[in-house]
Amino acid sequence: MAILSDAATQVLVPLAAVVGIAFAVAQWVLVSRVKLSPSARAGARDKDVLGDSLIEEEEGLNDHNVVVRCAEIQSAIAEGATSFLFTEYQYVGIFMSIFAVVIFVFLGSVEGFSTRSHPCTYSKDKECKPALFNALFSTVSFLLGAITSVVSGFLGMKIATYANARTTLEARKGVGEAFITAFRSGAVMGFLLASNGLLVLYIAINLFKLYYADDWEGLFESITGYGLGGSSMALFGRVGGGIYTKAADVGADLVGKVERNIPEDDPRNPAVIADNVGDNVGDIAGMGSDLFGSYAESSCAALVVASISSFGVNHDFTGMCYPLLVSSVGIVVSLITTLFATDIFEIKAVKEIEPALKKQLIISTALMTVGIALVSWLALPAKFTIFNFGEQKEVSNCPVQDVADACRTGAATNVIFGLALGYKSVIIPIFAIAVGIYVSFTIAAMYGIAVAALGMLSTIATGLSIDAYGPISDNAGGIAEMAGMSHRIRERTDALDAAGNTTAAIGKGFAIGSAALVSLALFGAFVSRAGVKVVDVLSPKVIIGLVVGAMLPYWFSAMTMKSVGKAALEMVEEVRRQFNTIPGLMEGTGKPDYANCVKISTDASIKQMIPPGALVMLTPLVVGTFFGVQTLSGVLAGALVSGVQVAISASNTGGAWDNAKKYIEAGASEHARALGPKGSDCHKAAVIGDTIGDPLKDTSGPSLNILIKLMAVESLVFAPFFATHGGILFKLF
Amino acid sequence: MAILSDAATQVLVPLAAVVGIAFAVAQWVLVSRVKLSPSARAGARDKDVLGDSLIEEEEGLNDHNVVVRCAEIQSAIAEGATSFLFTEYQYVGIFMSIFAVVIFVFLGSVEGFSTRSHPCTYSKDKECKPALFNALFSTVSFLLGAITSVVSGFLGMKIATYANARTTLEARKGVGEAFITAFRSGAVMGFLLASNGLLVLYIAINLFKLYYADDWEGLFESITGYGLGGSSMALFGRVGGGIYTKAADVGADLVGKVERNIPEDDPRNPAVIADNVGDNVGDIAGMGSDLFGSYAESSCAALVVASISSFGVNHDFTGMCYPLLVSSVGIVVSLITTLFATDIFEIKAVKEIEPALKKQLIISTALMTVGIALVSWLALPAKFTIFNFGEQKEVSNCPVQDVADACRTGAATNVIFGLALGYKSVIIPIFAIAVGIYVSFTIAAMYGIAVAALGMLSTIATGLSIDAYGPISDNAGGIAEMAGMSHRIRERTDALDAAGNTTAAIGKGFAIGSAALVSLALFGAFVSRAGVKVVDVLSPKVIIGLVVGAMLPYWFSAMTMKSVGKAALEMVEEVRRQFNTIPGLMEGTGKPDYANCVKISTDASIKQMIPPGALVMLTPLVVGTFFGVQTLSGVLAGALVSGVQVAISASNTGGAWDNAKKYIEAGASEHARALGPKGSDCHKAAVIGDTIGDPLKDTSGPSLNILIKLMAVESLVFAPFFATHGGILFKLF
Repeated sequence: MAILSDAATQVLVPLAAVVGIAFAVAQWVLVSRVKLSPSARAGARDKDVLGDSLIEEEEGLNDHNVVVRCAEIQSAIAEGATSFLFTEYQYVGIFMSIFAVVIFVFLGSVEGFSTRSHPCTYSKDKECKPALFNALFSTVSFLLGAITSVVSGFLGMKIATYANARTTLEARKGVGEAFITAFRSGAVMGFLLASNGLLVLYIAINLFKLYYADDWEGLFESITGYGLGGSSMALFGRVGGGIYTKAADVGADLVGKVERNIPEDDPRNPAVIADNVGDNVGDIAGMGSDLFGSYAESSCAALVVASISSFGVNHDFTGMCYPLLVSSVGIVVSLITTLFATDIFEIKAVKEIEPALKKQLIISTALMTVGIALVSWLALPAKFTIFNFGEQKEVSNCPVQDVADACRTGAATNVIFGLALGYKSVIIPIFAIAVGIYVSFTIAAMYGIAVAALGMLSTIATGLSIDAYGPISDNAGGIAEMAGMSHRIRERTDALDAAGNTTAAIGKGFAIGSAALVSLALFGAFVSRAGVKVVDVLSPKVIIGLVVGAMLPYWFSAMTMKSVGKAALEMVEEVRRQFNTIPGLMEGTGKPDYANCVKISTDASIKQMIPPGALVMLTPLVVGTFFGVQTLSGVLAGALVSGVQVAISASNTGGAWDNAKKYIEAGASEHARALGPKGSDCHKAAVIGDTIGDPLKDTSGPSLNILIKLMAVESLVFAPFFATHGGILFKLF
Repeated sequence: MAILSDAATQVLVPLAAVVGIAFAVAQWVLVSRVKLSPSARAGARDKDVLGDSLIEEEEGLNDHNVVVRCAEIQSAIAEGATSFLFTEYQYVGIFMSIFAVVIFVFLGSVEGFSTRSHPCTYSKDKECKPALFNALFSTVSFLLGAITSVVSGFLGMKIATYANARTTLEARKGVGEAFITAFRSGAVMGFLLASNGLLVLYIAINLFKLYYADDWEGLFESITGYGLGGSSMALFGRVGGGIYTKAADVGADLVGKVERNIPEDDPRNPAVIADNVGDNVGDIAGMGSDLFGSYAESSCAALVVASISSFGVNHDFTGMCYPLLVSSVGIVVSLITTLFATDIFEIKAVKEIEPALKKQLIISTALMTVGIALVSWLALPAKFTIFNFGEQKEVSNCPVQDVADACRTGAATNVIFGLALGYKSVIIPIFAIAVGIYVSFTIAAMYGIAVAALGMLSTIATGLSIDAYGPISDNAGGIAEMAGMSHRIRERTDALDAAGNTTAAIGKGFAIGSAALVSLALFGAFVSRAGVKVVDVLSPKVIIGLVVGAMLPYWFSAMTMKSVGKAALEMVEEVRRQFNTIPGLMEGTGKPDYANCVKISTDASIKQMIPPGALVMLTPLVVGTFFGVQTLSGVLAGALVSGVQVAISASNTGGAWDNAKKYIEAGASEHARALGPKGSDCHKAAVIGDTIGDPLKDTSGPSLNILIKLMAVESLVFAPFFATHGGILFKLF
């Protein structure tokens, strides 16, 4: 047995979670010290208190009106974001309630709603709790997962809209101050989410154990619902938020930048508030739900595999909680890592930001490697070893120059090169994933794969801090532009945003890699729970599943991309209408109707989020019920192998176009200047590529991760039902 | 046993092939009656012989100079195409020779180059021929397949370049006459190819039988090399030709249409001859090799499966030859069908062309259904039934209007909608393929799947006639433009070309569907020959193969698309250079340097064809040798399920952009006119989409079919080697 006692485990896990939450609150307090009330700032200036000498004096910077305007814009953004999320939660709430009923009825029917105990599936000599109660507890943990996900996303959004204007104001003092504010705010979200997820899971396990006692099979089968709930919410959050943000972004850019030739975030553009709201609901709330979903799923996958292996059979609680202990250590490691960024190193110049963020990744990975070794030594039987999965390559700079070069001959060649680059970018990550799968499987079969995924996600708090910091800086820049602050402020926030892009790309790679591993682990767990002995590619039931499963990412992408296209068209027409009908809008004397643009994005994304969401949620149910577990296995494997490719290529194609555009705009080299400047034909071609890439990299790509995982976890939850009642169609014929 | 005697089979198969060849020659004689010598035409005009009253008199139409110019342009195109094909064959010849040696050495090594007989794999009590001789005969049939493929492609190209100018001249008489000329020329190619393929295969089987006698296992194992040879050539033909044609097309359009605003095929454009050469080497020669490859592979797949089933074990020659008999009936059916188009119905107006072509498909399908039923009754044991696989949906018109609409807001939304439409177009074909696989597998396992593929390809002669007719008409239009003929001639050839597009799209659908089935059948044959009992998705060796296999279509597409992009960039720069440096080129007084553009396309495509070709050819060898048959099975299954999706979406995305552009250009409805006219911003956006679609629909998409099949047939040929010596890496660790 393990060195760590069960009692110690019972203390350490919740302790880490509570420490994480306390740290998040502390960071929030520090952010809230930046005052957004104009009177306080004006007062401070009058009194000329300490520290004010550090503030660089620029024209109009400390103007009373500017601060008031910042506060106004912030509240408009926060209002739009809150109203969208509430509307989204209403619709999703209905869907989730229905789905909760489906879970209860389907799983309850496995033993005909009997309340009698039955022999366990894996330990035939023991009695396990009745299927009806598994159904009940699965439903409860499904709802718990969904609620935790909602809380994660919503809190993230609240913090981001709280921090954006504060980052703008801090940018007046210097780039270091702005960086600290944005990064601390990201950390609030990262730590709240990681700690919250761990705490709720821990409490749920302990409460469920009061009923299940020694029936760990049933206990962890029910806990899997937590992962399903988390990633169902994530799906809608990602898709809805993704459509919202890209409809606003594409719509604002097409009329503003291309037709009217006004800068990004110009207050004359009616879609500008909707665009900034989009960053918060898509990149922050959507991503928060998404990462929480990944975390919940990989924990559940590892737990369910462990529950039917020696840990579960021997009732080794500490060994069983190994995944939770890994996450606990992850929180502590992330905490230490964050202190490096906020308190130990100080950022004084723009060029120091990117290395600082990269250092975050390096420090957290290095510490976590030690941490995982320690946990493994303390919590696992001595002969057990765990492989920590390697990292993915991101797109390097040289091919981007190719893409930028292709702009010289117009948008078409730019698009062709970008697509080719995206396709090519699939090669290395896929080999990395293949090696990772083979090695972790060889060490500890499906448990190895689940733990590898968990290892990749264990420093989620640091990852989220970095990820959230980007959109906050982006928003801060938007507020600076709209509030009419000087160009220097905008340059600083832009630098903050740009520095986050590379690290965010690495984060995306991690998300896709871990999604592939998690869904493979969930797939393995599903197969074993459904009592499938072998999934033979040569059986026609499996091969048709494979072919159809491989098609699903395309169907799903078609839906989400078309949704963005449609919503963007509506937005473009509204923005054009306002420019044409509101007198003095271009001259800056008329006021645009921001609210109408916000409404269009909200309505469009709510309406368009349902079909792709339903596709993913219903496919496993329909396939499992009508075609049975063999075909469903094929569908899961097909969706996994094809979805990973589409997700990677979509993300990197979009990224390549984005970077090619930025490369030309930045004009940092002789070569780049020859292609530019802004407004040249070549730059216009680059803008077209960037616009095409938007829905690919920010809507379809990230949602596909969820598609892969969600179908697997849903199949796992419904496995007993499919095994008992599934395959109606083949039974009939 | 079958009703049809073995002797009757021995007569009927070669008879059908000879009839097909005779029919092709007869069609060629009819086409050659259109004289291309100006003296004859001028003389005819002078004498005012009968029939000339039917020729509509138009300005300059019968001008001596116009006919001379047509003949000149034709010979320039033919010369460029011949020179490209010879260069291509030289390079591919070297590759093929090396590969032939590899086949011989690898397969010979299976039993250590021993010349002793060994017990058969499937009938343990019988003696089979030594592996060394299987290696020898496999190599011979590989070379036979490659040579037949070269002959097919080359003859097709010769006929097409012979027919193009004749179609132009006939178009002066009317659209019906031009249609007959183009269609007959297509038929020459279609029948030559189908009959030739059948005849060579038939002769090879009979010659090999002299050595193999009763060892049918070895006989049909060796014959599989025919499929490998055919589709290896097809790969290089498709990729090389595809890069050539799209480099020239994209290059010519980007400078000519977009920058200089001169019409398509304008003789002032230096890339115009290269563009027309491209049609012949890509769409004709490449497609000819491709379809021959499909035909050879599906025949070999069915034969190899049959050889180890009851037909082979009982030495039932007629039953064994069932696939050849199906092809024989296909030739006769196509012959009758062709007569309907050329002799029974007469085309008098443009609007009758498309229905005439669709009738070809309907008549041939209806007759073939009867034909297959008949052959099955005559040649198969009574209880055996064969399912004839259904047809695929093509892209309908309404979503194209969406794509065209999206042009209003620029190229970016057009591209987004096109991508979405392409992704969506995957859904229905995939369900059709899944149903087809399940039903044919249920009826007759892998043999059912091979025969279903063969059934889809059995009327290949008709399919090829229709497919070849399109590029011939396209070329004819180009010649009319370059020779300075009146606008009406161009309108007629354009109508011919457009009418062929819908039927060609159906043909593409058939090609992809049959490729999926063929490669599945070959995969099944490979697994059984390699002695694999089960391909379990849950085994790590298989899953890493699946993931990597699913990545290959992306890698391959990245290579081919980037090749087109690169070659097009070179072409654009050359065309720009000529416009800028040759005095009087825009005014029509200077003469462009066509030859240089032809050279650029040739060099680029030869150079760029090697890496993607090598990727496909080497992958099965590397995976099989180092990772073994389990991983190779995973790679094949992964490439199959993912490649089909990429191929369908690439073809349909490209097609949607093409159609959206044509929809705007044609201006046939109120809606279309609101988007146009030519040269409007909306039309320009549509042109960008069309250009992006070119490499997708004409280079990557069609080549992916070959990728899927070729890897499967190659694995099948090398199966004994992999089973004996494969998996070195896993054996070492």
